[in-house]
Amino acid sequence: MSRSISGWRVLSLAFCCVVTAAVSPRAQAPDSVVQRIRASTQYAQASAFIETDYDRFVNELIALTEIPAPQFKEQARAKAYVEMLRQQGLVDVEIDAEGNALGVRKGTGGGPMVAVVAHLDTVFPDGTDVKVKRQGTRFAAPGIGDNTRGIALMLAVIRAVQAAKFQTTSDVLFVGNVGEEGEGDLRGVKFLLRQGKYKDRIKQFIAIDGGEQGNITRGGVGSLRYRVIFKGPGGHSYGAFGLVNPAFAMGSAIAKFSRLNVPIEPRTTFNIGVVRGGTSVNSIPAEVSMDVDMRSESCAELKKVNEAFLALVKHAVDEENGVRSTREGKIEADPKLIGDRPCGETPASSPIVQTATAVVKAFGLTLNYSISSTDSNVPMNMGIPAVTIGRGGPGGRAHAPDEWTDVDRKGSVEAVKVAMTVILAVAGVP
Amino acid sequence: MSRSISGWRVLSLAFCCVVTAAVSPRAQAPDSVVQRIRASTQYAQASAFIETDYDRFVNELIALTEIPAPQFKEQARAKAYVEMLRQQGLVDVEIDAEGNALGVRKGTGGGPMVAVVAHLDTVFPDGTDVKVKRQGTRFAAPGIGDNTRGIALMLAVIRAVQAAKFQTTSDVLFVGNVGEEGEGDLRGVKFLLRQGKYKDRIKQFIAIDGGEQGNITRGGVGSLRYRVIFKGPGGHSYGAFGLVNPAFAMGSAIAKFSRLNVPIEPRTTFNIGVVRGGTSVNSIPAEVSMDVDMRSESCAELKKVNEAFLALVKHAVDEENGVRSTREGKIEADPKLIGDRPCGETPASSPIVQTATAVVKAFGLTLNYSISSTDSNVPMNMGIPAVTIGRGGPGGRAHAPDEWTDVDRKGSVEAVKVAMTVILAVAGVP
Repeated sequence: MSRSISGWRVLSLAFCCVVTAAVSPRAQAPDSVVQRIRASTQYAQASAFIETDYDRFVNELIALTEIPAPQFKEQARAKAYVEMLRQQGLVDVEIDAEGNALGVRKGTGGGPMVAVVAHLDTVFPDGTDVKVKRQGTRFAAPGIGDNTRGIALMLAVIRAVQAAKFQTTSDVLFVGNVGEEGEGDLRGVKFLLRQGKYKDRIKQFIAIDGGEQGNITRGGVGSLRYRVIFKGPGGHSYGAFGLVNPAFAMGSAIAKFSRLNVPIEPRTTFNIGVVRGGTSVNSIPAEVSMDVDMRSESCAELKKVNEAFLALVKHAVDEENGVRSTREGKIEADPKLIGDRPCGETPASSPIVQTATAVVKAFGLTLNYSISSTDSNVPMNMGIPAVTIGRGGPGGRAHAPDEWTDVDRKGSVEAVKVAMTVILAVAGVP
Repeated sequence: MSRSISGWRVLSLAFCCVVTAAVSPRAQAPDSVVQRIRASTQYAQASAFIETDYDRFVNELIALTEIPAPQFKEQARAKAYVEMLRQQGLVDVEIDAEGNALGVRKGTGGGPMVAVVAHLDTVFPDGTDVKVKRQGTRFAAPGIGDNTRGIALMLAVIRAVQAAKFQTTSDVLFVGNVGEEGEGDLRGVKFLLRQGKYKDRIKQFIAIDGGEQGNITRGGVGSLRYRVIFKGPGGHSYGAFGLVNPAFAMGSAIAKFSRLNVPIEPRTTFNIGVVRGGTSVNSIPAEVSMDVDMRSESCAELKKVNEAFLALVKHAVDEENGVRSTREGKIEADPKLIGDRPCGETPASSPIVQTATAVVKAFGLTLNYSISSTDSNVPMNMGIPAVTIGRGGPGGRAHAPDEWTDVDRKGSVEAVKVAMTVILAVAGVP
């Protein structure tokens, strides 16, 4: 299974590497499982229900979109959502200590718990106008696609399986989670899988957070973000000239960083995004800092670039302390981890990917595997088989104020069926 | 005389180098001039007046200190000061277009104009408590020494020469000038000598802006300050990775800058004081900037470090544009000159330095020549003989909130006599 390797001053960064592992709840071929589900009486009942449930899906999508859910301020939406989960008849419905809204649909027993998550948060700050603008079936509002449609879809799926009295082998934990976007840093799912009360029970993981349903995200682009603060004694630019200067150390670190070699494939990137520090042109700064972002599709490459980065920061600091006077104090650099989206991968051959693939094929969709940064990064990194699937619907302009999603009836109904089938097949239908 | 040498994008930076030149108003040896003045009836009358004028000097020092005069906000103090100059009986009293308060004391004719300046401004921002705290003769308040005592001293000198009806060969222009401190960048004296109505008449220059009166500043430490803005196309740290990054160009420029070799003697320094830029950790910045300070006692060394700096900025930009993609735009760097204190020197052998030296010796003070950054930098750079002399009084903590000066009667009275004698000897007494 995956293991932690710690970097310089970095608390056990889980550089992953997953893993062929993963227990399949049953030995049946995924295609036949999917075929059996789609041929069942319950499936016919669920499908009929989904058709009648369309208006409610649309109304809930609008209602949820219009409850603002900025990063770290998802409380209002979580409160509304947990009530909706309760109304579907789930059990153990609650908001956990991190702010995730969750509830369980009990299985017949014998299968490991499956977590199905969709994130509540949006990238839009407080005060953003979230009123939905309708043009026919094209609905526009900040966050309506990413990921309010995902959480609305999850409610529609739960209602459909409840209406058809579908039984699953595994318990299914449905979660509207916090903290997927930006500085949220996947905090909702990190809590769920590392500290939450189901942390030892969740053995498979499905995130609903993507557009086209033919697309299966089975790899997580990992990222590491640091704020590195360089401190020194400071002083007058003329009178104290010759003392170590933290801006020189930082400049040298940036110059070294800029010369790193990273592979184009697997895609690996690095960035200096923000620099700041110093008080006046004629003072040696006492403190400067830089914000650094590194990402890779490959855990091994992310580990390499991270180690190189931490080493070159240290090297730049040592050089500055070596060439100028430290009589008033040394330069010290503190690389503080401000973002850690663990990398990971669920192999194409794993049962969960094969099951999702079988569903995509059964619905005649165009299959595509992708690597991205979603809530699934966390379980992938921990060796828990995970995929991120689509919420359906054409849409666009995610993270922009004119974000939109199309709730055309046919497409919307099919999207619920696709997601339901993936969840049922992964959870196992006796 | 001194000549301009322009740097990259720098508008005719006057890298100096003065000059033995300077017309002495008379061929007499400075020592005998000083001796003659001190032996005159008028000197005895002036000295007696200075004794009686002590209380007024102290009261004016307090009154002027308590009129705030932050950089670029010297108006209130200039207005009060110009009225004080008018009360002394000067002619052509006015506030010029830059904000300097000035007036002329006519000479008998035949000598070139002498400018006597003392700066009005302080380093303290709006809202600073400038109430004078008295402990015996130890007066404390922000700016009370540097340079409010200088402007109060100038008033006392004018009153004394008026009271004694001292005649001088040269016209003497008395100026309470703006913009000596920090970002003022010597703007008051720059205007006076480059654009003001006396710019072609001023042929000798005395600044009152120092402590001990044995100290004669005859060299100006030059400084050049830049804000260099590095601009690029910006983009997403992951999606647009591979595009040029202005933070990388700036980091490389800082690293190169940090490795410059400058001489310890003549003292030459360089600094990165402030860095800023970028909007988020996961965006390639569209703009970053750095504030740079370079100084030298030597015009030639300042020119060298400036040229090296401008070349390395260009080199760092070219390198970044060479190693990453410019398909969305190139990195461009714009070094904007934000400070220019011209360097310069008045030779020890020049009549003005010899005259000030003779006065220092005549009063039995300990002679010291220094190199500093004062309003005299400007005339020195233009080849106008200039010295900066002391305002007298023990004092300390200049530029700190607890700045103080001691107005002990004996020392205060002598300080007025010393400054008066320097001014009279330079202006020539028939």
